[in-house]
Amino acid sequence: MRKVKWAVEYLKNSSKRVEDPSSLKSQWKKDYKQLHVEIGCGKGNYSMDMARMYPQDFFVAIEKNESAAGIAAKKFDEAQDLNNLCLIHGDAISIGEWFDKEEIDVIHLNFSDPWPKKRYAKRRLSSSSFLDQYKTILSKDGEIQMKTDNELLFEYSVLEFLSHDFILKDFCVNYRREPHPEDAITEYEEKFIAQNQPIFRCVLKKKEDPDENNS
Amino acid sequence: MRKVKWAVEYLKNSSKRVEDPSSLKSQWKKDYKQLHVEIGCGKGNYSMDMARMYPQDFFVAIEKNESAAGIAAKKFDEAQDLNNLCLIHGDAISIGEWFDKEEIDVIHLNFSDPWPKKRYAKRRLSSSSFLDQYKTILSKDGEIQMKTDNELLFEYSVLEFLSHDFILKDFCVNYRREPHPEDAITEYEEKFIAQNQPIFRCVLKKKEDPDENNS
Repeated sequence: MRKVKWAVEYLKNSSKRVEDPSSLKSQWKKDYKQLHVEIGCGKGNYSMDMARMYPQDFFVAIEKNESAAGIAAKKFDEAQDLNNLCLIHGDAISIGEWFDKEEIDVIHLNFSDPWPKKRYAKRRLSSSSFLDQYKTILSKDGEIQMKTDNELLFEYSVLEFLSHDFILKDFCVNYRREPHPEDAITEYEEKFIAQNQPIFRCVLKKKEDPDENNS
Repeated sequence: MRKVKWAVEYLKNSSKRVEDPSSLKSQWKKDYKQLHVEIGCGKGNYSMDMARMYPQDFFVAIEKNESAAGIAAKKFDEAQDLNNLCLIHGDAISIGEWFDKEEIDVIHLNFSDPWPKKRYAKRRLSSSSFLDQYKTILSKDGEIQMKTDNELLFEYSVLEFLSHDFILKDFCVNYRREPHPEDAITEYEEKFIAQNQPIFRCVLKKKEDPDENNS
């Protein structure tokens, strides 16, 4: 995306941005019912829409890209009715330092960068070093919900999840053939729907114990 | 499909048809390297093409529909160069009586009837009673290879396999984006490729022991 000149300055002063996420470790959920974390929120629409749909839950949106994070922060600040939403501008590779063991109820991965070249596979948000951290910070009945338009990322991710002690709870090769009003539509997603391109989706949970079958 | 009048008579005299499959239990592989079984072979093209591609392996094609089975039997008889191919005209619900424990190396499920209505779910070739039998007759390193154009059948099947102690070895939401010359193209498949419709495919193997992770 194009560089947003005001992003750096804006992020410094944004009230919805959390500057030091580690300082909130184990404190994120407060009195909210569930803690949702979207990794790679882009311009923030999904987390904002979801925060509005689920006022009883708390939403943390993470974005590495400065320009996108700046735009998301501005949107979050302007949505004055929303107190259940905040932004982390940073690289999710540190996510294990920001959240406590079993603190998160739902991790959302929406249209993540597929990093198609094998030498960059480690940057995919469903690669080994991320999955190990998700397993620690996800609650016992917690879920990872992943959506993508990318065939190769989807195939890679499902196989990675399964080989890292996750259970495939749900799995869909054309998610929007039904409307699913319970789940917000991202900006990317809207384009793919308009082009009649299928959205792939999977939902994972942790194996309760390593001996448990995939049932 | 339309009723083929000569099918009943033809099947009686076909030399490639096995009348009493149970009588060959534990004897199917003979000196061949691997035993392949296609369940629901339709008019038989896939098994015939595969038998030609893999002369070192033996192929058993199963078809319940009399008319389709009649056409397949005729094709198999006319392919006089192929000795590594035979037909069972019968309902695969009895498959556990026809093959010995761990006798089969590869089970092929190609464009199986999706039986979309829930009350007929038990007829799907990836439903519980079939999977339990596959687990018994499949060899230790054996595979189930499934292809379909049907989204709902694919989603249902992957989840069923995983909940029945199978490991997802491979998984593809657009199998023919690469040519895969090692795998014959079925009649249905050809039509879907021409229409640019994706072919879904998954490959399953048995969990070595129930404690093993999905890795």
